[in-house]
Amino acid sequence: MPILVMKFGGTSVATLDRIRRAAKRVGVEVAKGYDVIVIVSAMSGKTNELVGWVGETSPLYDAREYDAVVSSGENVTAGLMALTLQEMDVPARSWQGWQVPLRTNSAHGSARIDEIPPENILRKFGEGMRVAVVAGFQGVSPEGRITTLGRGGSDTTAVAFAAAFDAERCDIYTDVDGVYTTDPRICDKARKLDRIAFEEMLELASLGAKVLQTRSVELAMRYKVRLRVLSSFEEQSDEAGTLVCAEEDIVESNVVAGVAYSRDEAKMTLISVADRPGIAAAIFGPLADAGVNVDMIVQNISEDGRTDMTFSCPVDQVPRAEKAMEDAKAGGEINYHDLVADTGVCKVSVVGIGMRSHAGVAAQMFQALKNENINIKVITTSEIKISVLIDRRYMELAVQALHDSFGLDKAA
Amino acid sequence: MPILVMKFGGTSVATLDRIRRAAKRVGVEVAKGYDVIVIVSAMSGKTNELVGWVGETSPLYDAREYDAVVSSGENVTAGLMALTLQEMDVPARSWQGWQVPLRTNSAHGSARIDEIPPENILRKFGEGMRVAVVAGFQGVSPEGRITTLGRGGSDTTAVAFAAAFDAERCDIYTDVDGVYTTDPRICDKARKLDRIAFEEMLELASLGAKVLQTRSVELAMRYKVRLRVLSSFEEQSDEAGTLVCAEEDIVESNVVAGVAYSRDEAKMTLISVADRPGIAAAIFGPLADAGVNVDMIVQNISEDGRTDMTFSCPVDQVPRAEKAMEDAKAGGEINYHDLVADTGVCKVSVVGIGMRSHAGVAAQMFQALKNENINIKVITTSEIKISVLIDRRYMELAVQALHDSFGLDKAA
Repeated sequence: MPILVMKFGGTSVATLDRIRRAAKRVGVEVAKGYDVIVIVSAMSGKTNELVGWVGETSPLYDAREYDAVVSSGENVTAGLMALTLQEMDVPARSWQGWQVPLRTNSAHGSARIDEIPPENILRKFGEGMRVAVVAGFQGVSPEGRITTLGRGGSDTTAVAFAAAFDAERCDIYTDVDGVYTTDPRICDKARKLDRIAFEEMLELASLGAKVLQTRSVELAMRYKVRLRVLSSFEEQSDEAGTLVCAEEDIVESNVVAGVAYSRDEAKMTLISVADRPGIAAAIFGPLADAGVNVDMIVQNISEDGRTDMTFSCPVDQVPRAEKAMEDAKAGGEINYHDLVADTGVCKVSVVGIGMRSHAGVAAQMFQALKNENINIKVITTSEIKISVLIDRRYMELAVQALHDSFGLDKAA
Repeated sequence: MPILVMKFGGTSVATLDRIRRAAKRVGVEVAKGYDVIVIVSAMSGKTNELVGWVGETSPLYDAREYDAVVSSGENVTAGLMALTLQEMDVPARSWQGWQVPLRTNSAHGSARIDEIPPENILRKFGEGMRVAVVAGFQGVSPEGRITTLGRGGSDTTAVAFAAAFDAERCDIYTDVDGVYTTDPRICDKARKLDRIAFEEMLELASLGAKVLQTRSVELAMRYKVRLRVLSSFEEQSDEAGTLVCAEEDIVESNVVAGVAYSRDEAKMTLISVADRPGIAAAIFGPLADAGVNVDMIVQNISEDGRTDMTFSCPVDQVPRAEKAMEDAKAGGEINYHDLVADTGVCKVSVVGIGMRSHAGVAAQMFQALKNENINIKVITTSEIKISVLIDRRYMELAVQALHDSFGLDKAA
């Protein structure tokens, strides 16, 4: 029988009633003829409680014990989900990570999946079991210790199972009903996308559309897993939610798929830096060491052997960035005239694989912002994304203007 | 190094503070030179919460899923205890049942321990680990599923580890400071015993001194594990608490070790039963089938082929017992004139291995009750115990009188 993977996040299994509702969704797919692998998170709040206890017990904790403790929430949900399915006369059993086994490396707290041998679960499917309920987020190391995959790791578990079992699709049930062209809270014309390409999803996810763990999208892209995001709080048809899929599965699409933003950015400029080979490394090495997440980088043209270097980072990392630069200057590693921080900016991006084949997207974006008298402070581009830094007070206006300009309220 | 097993129950690990206090006790033993195996229960209340969820999800639950769910509380405590010990610079790690592995049969919900191979933990002790923190109450079946040992099973886990590792002693930390000659709540002269024989502990435990799970005492007796009960809420010396040990380890003792009671008993008499071979089976078979826990049984002498049969059972099982007898009578399996229930009785027992070699204990017991004008309704005796049924309103008086009569307020 074809195999389907269904993943339910913490809010979707927060109570026994919600577990029952999720189980009913599973029952619908079983009735269609699928053998189903269900991946469950811990009931919402449970993992945070456990993480809190570990932190209180031991600020510099042993990550192996952290994993042993925080993985327990998923075990509870897996057992309860299996029981709920059995109550509905659906043959089901629970599997903990070590029972599958989901084998990982020993990087406790953020382990990588090495292997998911499908034999044990396939044998049970062969014996008439219809649903394997698997505790998400956890695996077992070569040393036989419990590992976890990092926060949000249940998405990754789900995609890895879909790849290992060659599943027809991997459905991620969550508390939103899909991926939107932009954030509906700041643009009321935002429209749910029926399909989005993996590459676009990656750009949107890392830009703040926190629907799927980035790693799970990367994994789905590598193994060509058809990934669907949909709400566990609504009745669903086969066409509900958003399908994250390969570019070639998207027949028609807008040039731009969505508009993303990041509110609390800062723009920092090192003025009059001595321009020499290795200067970028001398600047961004110390910033990385200080834990500053540098995003955009722009270097001006050089004049008289000196240049200006501009970069952006989250606004709460500005003090850290300033200290790193001052220390580097004091240590003689770099030399600059002044460091100017603009803490009132935000980033707005348009994302779309269509840009690869359509010229003029950047020009259209800049024109739309000009029409609203919004000044652009920094520009960066990639193959499928154009990002600008602008004044924060224009963020909503810019998102709405771009959404209109690229016609995102209408399907392709 | 010598090995010590220390077990902490739910109230002893109910909060992070209490886990810290328990860890300090472990640290004291490590400092003395012991390698320690710590067995932990779930934080108090956790297992009940999980059991409640399972019952609400599925009234006739799959015991394998029940075990997968309810075993998770111990995993949390084990990890937190290991982290706490590490914070105190005591090399420690946690072990879940399947990691040891603690192998059981497949009787989910009340599994029997088959084997605890000590190699894995001993190897770690050899590498410098000083404390193995083991999640109590759980094991793994031959099919690789998680099993549990039944409520209170962490006591049994502790004793089984002490046997498997040939531990010097098994210390059970709980919320009482030892085993008493009787219940201090009804007899203010009750005295804590320094030592008690396994056999006596078994009689006292099953009679209501709910300090240790009965199975753990049986196991300790079989494998000659020196078992100590002591409080986790007091500073402890090596001589604290009560040592439950073999008879030959008790040099001097009173003839009677303690006075036990059971408050809510009922005495039922079948009057004028036709006395024929097989009549006892015909009566007590249907009672067992109806789930009636028959305790004492007395058969009067037979007259004219008829006899009276008296038995005791918990008072709340009287309706069930009556229905079983009426059904058996209606079905023609037994014949009796009347069934009389006295629901106002209690059971009081004196227990002591000294009875084996001392005559006159029964006579002294009956005299003490006569001195208080307490009428005895039923008597049963075993090798180390004499029990009587009396009116419930005399229970406290009887316990106090017997405690005085056998001089239990004074050590031997």
